[in-house]
Amino acid sequence: MSKEVNSESVSLCPLSTPAATEQEMLCIFGTGDLGRSLGQRLFQTGYKVVYGSRRPHSCGPLPPGTQVQTQSARLVFVCIHRENYNFLETLAPQLKGKVLVDVSNNLKKNMYPEANAEYLQRLIPGAQVVKGFNTLSAWALQNGPSDASRQVYVCGNSLEAKQAVIEVATKLGFTVLDRGSLTAARELEDFPLQLFPEWRLPLQLATGLTAFFFFYLLIRDVIYSYVVNDKDISFRIMASLANKVFPIVSLIMLSLCYLPGVIAAFLQLYRGTKYKRFPDWLDRWMLCRKQLGLVALALASLHVLYTLIIPIRYYVRYRLAAHTISQIKENKTSPFDTTMAWRTDSYYVIGILGFGLYLLLGITSLPSVSNVLSWREFSFIQSKLGYLTLFFCTFHTYLYGWDKFLQPSSYKWFMLPGYMLSLVVPSVVLVLKLLLLLPCVDSTLTRIRQGWERTDPEKKKKNYQSELAVCSGLCLLHL
Amino acid sequence: MSKEVNSESVSLCPLSTPAATEQEMLCIFGTGDLGRSLGQRLFQTGYKVVYGSRRPHSCGPLPPGTQVQTQSARLVFVCIHRENYNFLETLAPQLKGKVLVDVSNNLKKNMYPEANAEYLQRLIPGAQVVKGFNTLSAWALQNGPSDASRQVYVCGNSLEAKQAVIEVATKLGFTVLDRGSLTAARELEDFPLQLFPEWRLPLQLATGLTAFFFFYLLIRDVIYSYVVNDKDISFRIMASLANKVFPIVSLIMLSLCYLPGVIAAFLQLYRGTKYKRFPDWLDRWMLCRKQLGLVALALASLHVLYTLIIPIRYYVRYRLAAHTISQIKENKTSPFDTTMAWRTDSYYVIGILGFGLYLLLGITSLPSVSNVLSWREFSFIQSKLGYLTLFFCTFHTYLYGWDKFLQPSSYKWFMLPGYMLSLVVPSVVLVLKLLLLLPCVDSTLTRIRQGWERTDPEKKKKNYQSELAVCSGLCLLHL
Amino acid sequence: MSKEVNSESVSLCPLSTPAATEQEMLCIFGTGDLGRSLGQRLFQTGYKVVYGSRRPHSCGPLPPGTQVQTQSARLVFVCIHRENYNFLETLAPQLKGKVLVDVSNNLKKNMYPEANAEYLQRLIPGAQVVKGFNTLSAWALQNGPSDASRQVYVCGNSLEAKQAVIEVATKLGFTVLDRGSLTAARELEDFPLQLFPEWRLPLQLATGLTAFFFFYLLIRDVIYSYVVNDKDISFRIMASLANKVFPIVSLIMLSLCYLPGVIAAFLQLYRGTKYKRFPDWLDRWMLCRKQLGLVALALASLHVLYTLIIPIRYYVRYRLAAHTISQIKENKTSPFDTTMAWRTDSYYVIGILGFGLYLLLGITSLPSVSNVLSWREFSFIQSKLGYLTLFFCTFHTYLYGWDKFLQPSSYKWFMLPGYMLSLVVPSVVLVLKLLLLLPCVDSTLTRIRQGWERTDPEKKKKNYQSELAVCSGLCLLHL
Repeated sequence: MSKEVNSESVSLCPLSTPAATEQEMLCIFGTGDLGRSLGQRLFQTGYKVVYGSRRPHSCGPLPPGTQVQTQSARLVFVCIHRENYNFLETLAPQLKGKVLVDVSNNLKKNMYPEANAEYLQRLIPGAQVVKGFNTLSAWALQNGPSDASRQVYVCGNSLEAKQAVIEVATKLGFTVLDRGSLTAARELEDFPLQLFPEWRLPLQLATGLTAFFFFYLLIRDVIYSYVVNDKDISFRIMASLANKVFPIVSLIMLSLCYLPGVIAAFLQLYRGTKYKRFPDWLDRWMLCRKQLGLVALALASLHVLYTLIIPIRYYVRYRLAAHTISQIKENKTSPFDTTMAWRTDSYYVIGILGFGLYLLLGITSLPSVSNVLSWREFSFIQSKLGYLTLFFCTFHTYLYGWDKFLQPSSYKWFMLPGYMLSLVVPSVVLVLKLLLLLPCVDSTLTRIRQGWERTDPEKKKKNYQSELAVCSGLCLLHL
Repeated sequence: MSKEVNSESVSLCPLSTPAATEQEMLCIFGTGDLGRSLGQRLFQTGYKVVYGSRRPHSCGPLPPGTQVQTQSARLVFVCIHRENYNFLETLAPQLKGKVLVDVSNNLKKNMYPEANAEYLQRLIPGAQVVKGFNTLSAWALQNGPSDASRQVYVCGNSLEAKQAVIEVATKLGFTVLDRGSLTAARELEDFPLQLFPEWRLPLQLATGLTAFFFFYLLIRDVIYSYVVNDKDISFRIMASLANKVFPIVSLIMLSLCYLPGVIAAFLQLYRGTKYKRFPDWLDRWMLCRKQLGLVALALASLHVLYTLIIPIRYYVRYRLAAHTISQIKENKTSPFDTTMAWRTDSYYVIGILGFGLYLLLGITSLPSVSNVLSWREFSFIQSKLGYLTLFFCTFHTYLYGWDKFLQPSSYKWFMLPGYMLSLVVPSVVLVLKLLLLLPCVDSTLTRIRQGWERTDPEKKKKNYQSELAVCSGLCLLHL
Repeated sequence: MSKEVNSESVSLCPLSTPAATEQEMLCIFGTGDLGRSLGQRLFQTGYKVVYGSRRPHSCGPLPPGTQVQTQSARLVFVCIHRENYNFLETLAPQLKGKVLVDVSNNLKKNMYPEANAEYLQRLIPGAQVVKGFNTLSAWALQNGPSDASRQVYVCGNSLEAKQAVIEVATKLGFTVLDRGSLTAARELEDFPLQLFPEWRLPLQLATGLTAFFFFYLLIRDVIYSYVVNDKDISFRIMASLANKVFPIVSLIMLSLCYLPGVIAAFLQLYRGTKYKRFPDWLDRWMLCRKQLGLVALALASLHVLYTLIIPIRYYVRYRLAAHTISQIKENKTSPFDTTMAWRTDSYYVIGILGFGLYLLLGITSLPSVSNVLSWREFSFIQSKLGYLTLFFCTFHTYLYGWDKFLQPSSYKWFMLPGYMLSLVVPSVVLVLKLLLLLPCVDSTLTRIRQGWERTDPEKKKKNYQSELAVCSGLCLLHL
């Protein structure tokens, strides 16, 4: 919105239209970007629009002495900065009984103690404030629904007021989502400001792990062979090294999706109740599992592509040819090794199956897909198939290692090969999960999750506190 | 829900909150898992919650003699087992005029003749029963919307009652879908219990076919070469064999997606009307076409991955090298075969194009995508492009066969090669489809599908019966 | 709908049902396909259906003298052709106060000046017309919601009327989208007729470019080598040639997604305002960017698959073997070329990363995904990551060219290699984008997009006009 809303006179500019008579009249306060984009759109859709502004100079050539009865307009769109709301207070009488649509956004989160819409409602208690349209892009406000701006979120305390706004929104071609009462305004005002909040942690983690393993393997493979064997294999950095780092990070992150669940289970077993809140770090962790998984999936896909281009890489082709040639030169052909065939094939196949399941998990986490699933179906896929995926991927890595675990040659400079490091967390998760699947443990856990609570005296007390956490003060009434 | 709801005293526990005054009061019956999770959530969202329970002992330290006016709460969430509904009957007077939200679920489908909600309505006719919240996971009830639990389905006979519940649900952050009157309750109560019902058949079919072809090819390839040539190629089971089974099953299942449509068309042609119901097996078959197709797509994708890893497999590399070496040893180089180049290339390319189209079909069957398509667009893709896909994939297989059809060598132990078997159904489907595309046939079919009916006397009678099936008893009224 | 609605008598046929008493009665005019399918469905759902038809003969055996009080039915579904609406005019008195649901569709767009529903409303002003159900397939009308027919769009001027229709639709199991007032009827009536309108241009473009580059490369590679070197490499057409054409077209189309944005930016800079409409061609171009991108993505995916099958192609294997053999024959082995290794690897890796980002763009343009994104997130991905993708893909192509740019050998018949041509547009776009990122330019542009306008006198005038375009006539009112 334009900054220079500061002069004192207030102007209202009606959009006279061919058949103005039978059209609903809307009023827009503020001739900033938002106000004008919205007005243009409303005008094109066939509404009669009246502008309210304090910038007469910006109002162009004016037919003198025209009067506008504001009362004719039931809806008033407030497209001015929160700083200028106080100016609206002066209009309180005129705005009494009107529906004020607060379209405003702030420059950053938590700038003010209360949401703009709530502030506006407080200023003009006589009006019915509805928060809405603020989640749309200026482009969408001007040209109608587009990709990320198909939905208009509205919230407000008066149902009729909301209904009126919803009518306008649908007429503009938007889909409307009612977010309940005005208390949701803050959430709606924060929405346009957010930039993948729940992706931060997973992405940082991915970056961190990638960086670490990159340098780790750089030292272990490239630099080592340069120092010790005095051989320059730096060209491997581009593809070979990356193709080691990605799967490692991917596997670790996949296992990190399932670790918190296991921890939570053991915590519930230990506490003997499900009604105690988890520590915050665990809650936060659980809430970004989906993102963790998707980032891991992305890395896994890269790993797949990197693997599939192996045979067309110059380096690989050269080595294969060289191998063949050397065989001929020395005139000794290595015999066919069936074990080797079994081993590599199963290594690849397990990998493929793991990746296939992984893709399935990714697809079912698409909003439209998960929406049509019952949560039983969803948890079946995400939990059961999820662990199966983890198992496949871990097994895939073990097969990769095969007997290298025993070869001292693979421990250069006392540094373990990368894939061994990547196996630690997944193995732990799988073992813990196995423990949880033991009949006795499983049954207890199930009962706890169905609300049952262990009741040894001193637990009981805790139990009460937890209960208090639920209803914070209980009383008895005999009907 | 906790089983031990059985003592006789009834307790109501209000959650006293900072600004309890201006908050709406909700009542929850049942302090089982569901009740407490829901209560906690409602409480956090800023509602004043009152618990109704028959377990005073679970109500913790009680401020003596507190009184709660139930009438203050308009909404009552019923979170107790259906078995205990009769206890509610005793409260009928207090519950008169209230909105009862039935959150209950059953342990398995069709346990009772009527839906819980309808049963509740019958017990307490004075109240307005709304079914809702039962499709959410306990986790979502406790911590708010998550993947598969973003939507709350509600149904009920009173619009106002539903509106009130919807208000609460949206305030909790859920998206609400109104499923109409209380008759939909059964459907809502079955929803949380379902576990991919419409996927059963396709998955069983896939498993069956896969198993059959696996053993068929196991005998034909591995065992045969072991017995006859005394050569152990068991290592091929892992990748080579699977890479034969998957495409075979995939192709067959793809064709099975289109077979019922063709059958239906011929049935309509024969009957000369579209107003007769199809036999049940055909209906069921048609209803799981989408799932058939998606399973087939999954198998096709596996086939693609299996094919792409061929060149990095040890066995393949070894064979190639061995071939080169042998060429040198015998000092005769096989000349370049242009036909062979054409053949293999077109074989691969057709496969790729088929798979590409296949992916397109898969993507358009995503709910969110098919929702934005007009059904004309949808049927264009699923039918026209679908048949094109089937044609490509079939042609791909024929190219694979090429001249092997004529080589007696490929008929070991009188067993046809797998791909030949896989070609039967698709070929049939394609031929039948071609017949349907003949102008004369096509036009007739189109007219039938537009409601036209063949009208030779004795058909006419059938025709009537079919009409009766539509309106079962007609009458004439001259306005 | 059946054509022969022409006799004069009018018949109403009630569906007598077991418990007809407590069921709502609906009336359907027209016993054509639509009418009967809908009736069947409504009947199965438990409604009492009355048919209104002018074809007594089609009404089967009639219990004589049955009377039907039409007034009992509040909802009347109009399933007859617009041509026969005038016949409804005669029923105007009976239809007074009823809700008329216009289910009709036209055979092609813009057949009539006004929408069917609006026409109907004009004919029977006493009734409340609601447009709806017309976007469903006959199949969905008969058997309930299916893939592309899950949603029922309704529009109408009376809220109550709409509410009543919505109730029925939800009871039939559909999700309802309210499109506002009856003015939206036209849009609803055009919807079922559309067949990927916004995909036309991109697909035509893709086809055109593909055809051009195919023949261009056919001449340059195949024919040239046939004429000049008298060597038949026609077999390359199938895979090698296609694998050149696809990436070229894909890259060009990707850059064409971002060109209009850049042009628009420069236009805004030149005009010094954002309130002037863009030329139509630019608007149209901008509106099909998404489709351009998705088509390009499809081609890119084909390119990937074509590339991945390279090593299993007969031609490639033969050439590699031949190369090895020749090396041995001539007994000179080419040394390992590190630069070459670096080059090819980075070439592939950049390609993979570009494709990965590309897929990400594709996924986020899925409706359900873009719906959950704030537009800030969406534009971050589509714009920032989009340009990154374009950069990667362009760089990938440059790496492919490497030093070939300098080799005269690559200019056969004065025809540039295809990839060079493909680099023109992307390079231009990237350079222009870089210019726009210059601090000074960027800041100006940002201010303009926030509504600021350059104000040198003669611009100011234009400015006014543009402002007029927004509110077309302003006036001043001192509150």
